[in-house]
Amino acid sequence: MQAEIITIGDEILIGQIVDTNSAFIAKQLNKIGVSVYQITSVQDEKKHILKALYEAETNADIVILTGGLGPTKDDITKTTIAKYFNDTLIEDVSVRKNIEHLWEVYIKKPITQVNLDQALVPSKAEVLMNKYGSAPGMWIEKNKTVFIVLPGVPYEMKALIDDEVILKLRRQFQFPYILHKTFLTYGLGESTLASRIETFEDELPDFIKLAYLPSLGRVRLRLSAKANDKAMVEAEMDKQTQLLLPLIHDIFVGYEEDLSIEAVIGKQLTQLGKTIATAESCTGGLIAERFTANAGASKYFKGSIVSYTKETKINVLKVSEDLINSHSVVSAEVAEVMAHNARTLLNTDYAIATTGNAGPTKDDTAEDLGIVYIAIATKDSVYSEKFSLGNHRVKVINKAANKAFEMLQKEILKK
Amino acid sequence: MQAEIITIGDEILIGQIVDTNSAFIAKQLNKIGVSVYQITSVQDEKKHILKALYEAETNADIVILTGGLGPTKDDITKTTIAKYFNDTLIEDVSVRKNIEHLWEVYIKKPITQVNLDQALVPSKAEVLMNKYGSAPGMWIEKNKTVFIVLPGVPYEMKALIDDEVILKLRRQFQFPYILHKTFLTYGLGESTLASRIETFEDELPDFIKLAYLPSLGRVRLRLSAKANDKAMVEAEMDKQTQLLLPLIHDIFVGYEEDLSIEAVIGKQLTQLGKTIATAESCTGGLIAERFTANAGASKYFKGSIVSYTKETKINVLKVSEDLINSHSVVSAEVAEVMAHNARTLLNTDYAIATTGNAGPTKDDTAEDLGIVYIAIATKDSVYSEKFSLGNHRVKVINKAANKAFEMLQKEILKK
Repeated sequence: MQAEIITIGDEILIGQIVDTNSAFIAKQLNKIGVSVYQITSVQDEKKHILKALYEAETNADIVILTGGLGPTKDDITKTTIAKYFNDTLIEDVSVRKNIEHLWEVYIKKPITQVNLDQALVPSKAEVLMNKYGSAPGMWIEKNKTVFIVLPGVPYEMKALIDDEVILKLRRQFQFPYILHKTFLTYGLGESTLASRIETFEDELPDFIKLAYLPSLGRVRLRLSAKANDKAMVEAEMDKQTQLLLPLIHDIFVGYEEDLSIEAVIGKQLTQLGKTIATAESCTGGLIAERFTANAGASKYFKGSIVSYTKETKINVLKVSEDLINSHSVVSAEVAEVMAHNARTLLNTDYAIATTGNAGPTKDDTAEDLGIVYIAIATKDSVYSEKFSLGNHRVKVINKAANKAFEMLQKEILKK
Repeated sequence: MQAEIITIGDEILIGQIVDTNSAFIAKQLNKIGVSVYQITSVQDEKKHILKALYEAETNADIVILTGGLGPTKDDITKTTIAKYFNDTLIEDVSVRKNIEHLWEVYIKKPITQVNLDQALVPSKAEVLMNKYGSAPGMWIEKNKTVFIVLPGVPYEMKALIDDEVILKLRRQFQFPYILHKTFLTYGLGESTLASRIETFEDELPDFIKLAYLPSLGRVRLRLSAKANDKAMVEAEMDKQTQLLLPLIHDIFVGYEEDLSIEAVIGKQLTQLGKTIATAESCTGGLIAERFTANAGASKYFKGSIVSYTKETKINVLKVSEDLINSHSVVSAEVAEVMAHNARTLLNTDYAIATTGNAGPTKDDTAEDLGIVYIAIATKDSVYSEKFSLGNHRVKVINKAANKAFEMLQKEILKK
């Protein structure tokens, strides 16, 4: 079963935005065993969209379009779709109700006619309700091809893919059962690792593929099994896992779920009934922001002291001025006191602290650009690590947050 | 003059990586007046690449391919290109020298034959030297179409575009003049705005396009003009600007430089010599993180108290428990005390506080999902606004941060 993705919007073709939608859609489709044949980005231009639709129909069983469903003049996807299916636009009552509801409850402004016109859909289309916006998703079948039209706003599109499209595709088609298992390994290069497990790889059944996904000092090994018999696939995956684990016991750090590391940590803390706080200097609140981006964070995340100046470290975090002056603000000593004090101040089981030079300038710190100290405080210990994270400000900040999450996860797994 | 971009690689079509290359290439091409007709992503598969090349040649004067130039078996772009031009691969001496140089100076490992094979290029191709890697760029002309083949590694591709491709295109072709002007507006929805300026939009000359770029409570209006006569384009853009401004005088906050609102605020605070702190509940550190993403933030941003639980609001921000119990944690009263206390605690000129229900659940708060109170504290005043920001967690959090920046900018501009 093959799909083609068409993303519509001038802003993509002038390079104003990066098209992240198609990567998300491709990933979700691949998970259920639909391979994506091509991704095509076209302008908000009727002739061009029609051409893309014709070509996609010849290549694919499933065609997913995103973008151009807004209420403004440059959004012509819906009328173009109607033309493609020789159809006319009619008002969908449920969509109109949804729009009126959104405006009444959230937007709290008078509805204009252009808003209400969002309820007009091709008569042949089945509506996929958009909980988060006025532009509905649409599902239209022609001959043997399914056309799925989605808004381009990423969070609206994602919700429709996860809550509607994937489920509906599963109901309608027979997909092979697909099972991915990703082994996270540290400290061995791709080629060395490859030769170590060469025999294992050669002896894999042909419905299980092994992929090496190297990135920044870690290699993810992904086993992907694809077959119709679910029970058989799961049994075989377990068997291969038992064969692989002994071969990588010294570098294996865990299975990778399809979750961010902070979401995994959040789940672990919730299960353990433990809490955490952060004291952030160079990461400037990024660690807190990444924790709280996950629903339910208040169960384990109590808060953060973003102490971006020496003064705040002294006044709010109660780091002694002498300590800062004798070791400089970017030091193991200061990081550890920040972590310890944040943990006691916010009364948590764990605390993470960061202090470093994100750059572009060294300011008055003793350490080089890109040097970051990260400290972890627990009820009975405080320790820190020193990292050198390069000379690109945004990279340093984000790498520091990642390192902090990795240190924290190691600490939690000790228990 | 039209271009088409083809990005090659299975990893794009399984959604493992987001294709950022084409956005970069599209942006650079648009700057010199080349509009991108289509962006197509295809698998590492000979037949498919050839098909994409044939279609691109019929649509475009310039075809830019990236990806699939690596030394491994799955990189087949070069042999496929040779086939497309009925050409053979021959060794390019300058590329071989470059590879030997790279290995000697940077890689410091013995060169293997696969490395040296990177010096093989189609005999019809003009080489674009890759300073950063072993895969050269290639420039091949067929009939009236120019084909430019570039490595997929972003920094190698970017250097080749900036140092070679754009200059060579400018030397070879006469491009129309392109002018973009982006108007940043706040506080009016896309559709309301659209109906307000409908007549203006209808009366635009054909060579000027208007685009609406909405994102989380703000709408950017982009006028794009394209014609051969530079003076005429600039005059007409000025004229249209004078027609548009009166229509949006109440929501227009400035022309978009490449600066975010927090970067603009940062510049203003630095100029005024003023400082700021934040007390964040529902935004969870996002406001602090956005301030500190900008270099030099320590000049004006002293820090943040991310008080994600009632306990932290009481213990760290010193909000009285009675106040929270009588008004609930999501209330104007609590927001204002948070802002006031953060300002005094961190000793700043301004403080912003946020408290609200980002969802997905209401928890024990009195207010509806999506209700956020944002307070601003100055040396002589504290006030707050209530916002209803919808029902999508990530959207509520990000909109709240944007609203906070908008309130703050208004406050700063009062001075």
